[in-house]
Amino acid sequence: MTIYKAPLADQRFALFDLLGAEAILTKLQGGAEHGRDLLDAVLEEAGKLAEQVLAPTNASGDAEGCHYDKATHAVTTPKGFKEAFKAFAEGGWAGLTAQEKFGGQALPGVLGTATTELFQSGNLSWSLYPLLSEGACHAMELHGTEAQQHTYLKPIVEGRWTGTMCLTEPQAGSDLGLLKTRAEPNADGSYAISGTKIFISAGEHDLAENIVHLVLARLPDAPAGSRGISMFIVPKFKANADGSPGERNKAYAGAIEHKMGIKGSATCVMNFDGAEGYLIGQPHKGLAAMFTMMNAARLSVGVQGLALAERAYQNSLNYARERLQGRALSGAKLPEKPADNLLVQPDVRRMLLTQRAFVEGSRALLLYTALQTDIEARGADEAQRRQASELVAFLIPIAKGVVTELAQECTKEALQVYGGHGYIGENGMEQFVRDARIITLYEGTTGIQAADLLGRKILQLQGVGAKHFLGEIGAFCKAHAGDAALRTLIGPLAAAAKEWSELTSALAQRVQANPEELGAAAVDYLWYSGYVTLAYFWARSVAAAEAGSQSAAFKQAKRDTAAFYFARILPRILTHKAAIEAGVATLPDIA
Amino acid sequence: MTIYKAPLADQRFALFDLLGAEAILTKLQGGAEHGRDLLDAVLEEAGKLAEQVLAPTNASGDAEGCHYDKATHAVTTPKGFKEAFKAFAEGGWAGLTAQEKFGGQALPGVLGTATTELFQSGNLSWSLYPLLSEGACHAMELHGTEAQQHTYLKPIVEGRWTGTMCLTEPQAGSDLGLLKTRAEPNADGSYAISGTKIFISAGEHDLAENIVHLVLARLPDAPAGSRGISMFIVPKFKANADGSPGERNKAYAGAIEHKMGIKGSATCVMNFDGAEGYLIGQPHKGLAAMFTMMNAARLSVGVQGLALAERAYQNSLNYARERLQGRALSGAKLPEKPADNLLVQPDVRRMLLTQRAFVEGSRALLLYTALQTDIEARGADEAQRRQASELVAFLIPIAKGVVTELAQECTKEALQVYGGHGYIGENGMEQFVRDARIITLYEGTTGIQAADLLGRKILQLQGVGAKHFLGEIGAFCKAHAGDAALRTLIGPLAAAAKEWSELTSALAQRVQANPEELGAAAVDYLWYSGYVTLAYFWARSVAAAEAGSQSAAFKQAKRDTAAFYFARILPRILTHKAAIEAGVATLPDIA
Repeated sequence: MTIYKAPLADQRFALFDLLGAEAILTKLQGGAEHGRDLLDAVLEEAGKLAEQVLAPTNASGDAEGCHYDKATHAVTTPKGFKEAFKAFAEGGWAGLTAQEKFGGQALPGVLGTATTELFQSGNLSWSLYPLLSEGACHAMELHGTEAQQHTYLKPIVEGRWTGTMCLTEPQAGSDLGLLKTRAEPNADGSYAISGTKIFISAGEHDLAENIVHLVLARLPDAPAGSRGISMFIVPKFKANADGSPGERNKAYAGAIEHKMGIKGSATCVMNFDGAEGYLIGQPHKGLAAMFTMMNAARLSVGVQGLALAERAYQNSLNYARERLQGRALSGAKLPEKPADNLLVQPDVRRMLLTQRAFVEGSRALLLYTALQTDIEARGADEAQRRQASELVAFLIPIAKGVVTELAQECTKEALQVYGGHGYIGENGMEQFVRDARIITLYEGTTGIQAADLLGRKILQLQGVGAKHFLGEIGAFCKAHAGDAALRTLIGPLAAAAKEWSELTSALAQRVQANPEELGAAAVDYLWYSGYVTLAYFWARSVAAAEAGSQSAAFKQAKRDTAAFYFARILPRILTHKAAIEAGVATLPDIA
Repeated sequence: MTIYKAPLADQRFALFDLLGAEAILTKLQGGAEHGRDLLDAVLEEAGKLAEQVLAPTNASGDAEGCHYDKATHAVTTPKGFKEAFKAFAEGGWAGLTAQEKFGGQALPGVLGTATTELFQSGNLSWSLYPLLSEGACHAMELHGTEAQQHTYLKPIVEGRWTGTMCLTEPQAGSDLGLLKTRAEPNADGSYAISGTKIFISAGEHDLAENIVHLVLARLPDAPAGSRGISMFIVPKFKANADGSPGERNKAYAGAIEHKMGIKGSATCVMNFDGAEGYLIGQPHKGLAAMFTMMNAARLSVGVQGLALAERAYQNSLNYARERLQGRALSGAKLPEKPADNLLVQPDVRRMLLTQRAFVEGSRALLLYTALQTDIEARGADEAQRRQASELVAFLIPIAKGVVTELAQECTKEALQVYGGHGYIGENGMEQFVRDARIITLYEGTTGIQAADLLGRKILQLQGVGAKHFLGEIGAFCKAHAGDAALRTLIGPLAAAAKEWSELTSALAQRVQANPEELGAAAVDYLWYSGYVTLAYFWARSVAAAEAGSQSAAFKQAKRDTAAFYFARILPRILTHKAAIEAGVATLPDIA
């Protein structure tokens, strides 16, 4: 069994010391009450739910998995999932950040991100059920009619129903333009939806009384490709006039997938067999509507990387403390014991510091990005909102693409600390590796994130977000140029930021000459961007720790981890620079 | 289901074109008949067994796993494993490289390595049963009496029995000095062995009529620590006078582990409850005896990395060819189809070329190392044998440590090419990732390999093996300095080799001043060494391809992959150099 303790001290450090969230949030529209005390109290409660209700269902949920009944098309989730969802709904967590008019609490998005981390650490599989609902809610908030919001959004916010996003089809994954699901108009203004969707998380389950599917499909007059896609609300049970679930709709799970991990999450094949659906938003504009919720979904998947890495790290640190094996190279450190613990081995510390650097650095990046979404939504003026929006657009592919990849390394190293014991199911470490393996794939693979960053956010949008961010790094370096605590960090950070900017310009020119250069450089450019971004947040962490009121040990740990990151991790940009510059000629055709 | 085709063309290229194995092997003692035709024919047959008998049991064996019966302590292996083992035994594969006097065929070790690759690609779990036997055979060849060899070694060589190596105990993993299993002398000269061993591969199964356990234990007068360990033969069934299995010994499997992967391999808890055992080799010298077979075992685990990566690569290449999704950045390449295939994406080619570079480079390294073991054993003169032995000692931790780590990256990228489909069990890619995760752990973790390389092979042994190897690289660079085909490779290779040598000297001095520096640098030094080593074999591959008689496409693929490796992979040494030089100060104590 694995341990889990909500990392509230580090969350608070990141939110309040590093990011100054209180000062920012309380100045936003409707944010007067979003002070530290309120946020603290919410985090505390979320931590309890994660530790006490969710964490104990993680391993058992993996072992039990979901079960599908062919005869009834019903899906049974693992033991404890229903109770956990009930506690979640009753605690008001389903509507934490939703607007008050829909029954939500309208709390800041950054708080939602922080609590989502805790729930996902507790049980990633379980957390996918409410997560998918969130995406559906976003879409209905933005594109639904008032009646649609009343009927389909409110019950989700209240934690009675859940939602899904039905995009992928067997022949249409990364390329949604290939999708074939059809929507034929009915006489009453509704549509008959027909087609098969795959990889539908939470497509069917027993946690809630109804499920609202948001389905991408083509109208009869739709143009081919991605400009001919519309979005439809397709409820599992059609709503009665009083809002209660009524007649069963023809939207059935046809199977659930047997996956490497997240076994407690029902990944469904959904068959729509003339199911009744209702157009949401404009005809043929479904893909754009779907993309409006993509940022939130991608940020949450980045948070999944953090959440898994955090819990894996806690356990590997604990194991390294307790496991007695071998002796320190310079002589016994625990001579009274039969052997020293693993912490005396520098290489074990390397593995632990790697995890810590990625976990805490990623947390700062993700919370920063989430805070920008709050500014984007409720900033005092238009200029502030626009800048935040551009920063979010720029940072999302980094937050999703890099953090999910780093989680692969973190969970791998966490397992490695255990030696052979890490490979045994009952020790729980291998589940983190299996669960983590999905996050570089769904909500856009790493290659898709990289193409989004370089192709869209840098080249198409002229890198406005990057300019803001680089400007911020430059201002930080300038402000702390004389700061003794940051003496060894500011120089390398400023140099890396400058090189990042130069690489970007050079790449833009090369891509103009040959668009294939984009694909040849994108993933290495994503990595480069990620490592410099984390370096920035580690330098900020040291600055914040200097000014903060934490314990001396807490501050020393921040300084140590920053020094480790700059000495041993940041130099990875050297390799990625070489790869970026190598160009498409080094990726010749393969027959 | 995954495909598998034995990569005979590349094996032959590596053996005969790149390594010149025929000229070397036929000059060794007893090697007159080990010409190309014989080796070719054996590879061909091994390929058939791997493709037709083993490969079809891989996914089904994973799904079914092994079953343990508490009442009888019996282990049932998955369907098809017994039949495969019968075919293996009948084909004479169990004795392929064993001496003729024990019933073996005395074929070269390098041929054993090449065929082992094929069998492990076919089914890694299955291949662990004969693999463990090999280790036990080695130990008995070197340390057993004639009578012990006759009774316990011959039946294994004949494929009727199998063997195990029983080292690990719950409190003694990497640190065998902590082990507690006791051996009390019986009146008849045998010993009563008592204790519990864990992680015993092939400890119990239904493939053979008897199992010979080689068990490390302490005699009553044994000194504490690693100098008080002796080795014992403990058969599952005691041998009758006629050699047939007789009375059941008190050596029982107490459980099998539920693991992340290699589910068809029975990993047993073995309880020795006063089991009858026979001392093999000198008292208290068991650990040294065990280490004599470590090289072979570690080389074979390196080959497991190659084997898994090869099969994963074949499938991801195949998928990238067939999956239609998206369009090329510079316009449709397959306009007649609904979409282009994945091969038009430069980033997909990057993932494929990464795999190919590691697979084929690792194959050359592993076969080179295996060839040195043949020279070590049967070289014409003492000087040649000693040099080969020193090369083997130096290369084993690289071959095991680096190739198993590269296999993590290869299997991860192979899965990534599939997108979300890679996460689904039935597509088979996730099994490769799960199976691969054990190989950086058993037979010494990566940290142990790194400490062996830097601590023992470089520092204790004054780097004699490294000197031979660097000398060889230097000679190669000199010989090909004017070679147009290698124009862009020789410079970087020579520079990297020089830097490797300088880093080694600088490290040696730092470790002398502070032994903790060893642990702080070892894993990054291992990586550095591995990447330069593969660069050498890629340069040799291009040279061999120029001179060879393969197709133009085959040669072009070698040139392309070498160019890719030098441009995009070799620069990883920049990062590892920075980490090596960062020193132990960047890995401070963790409380």
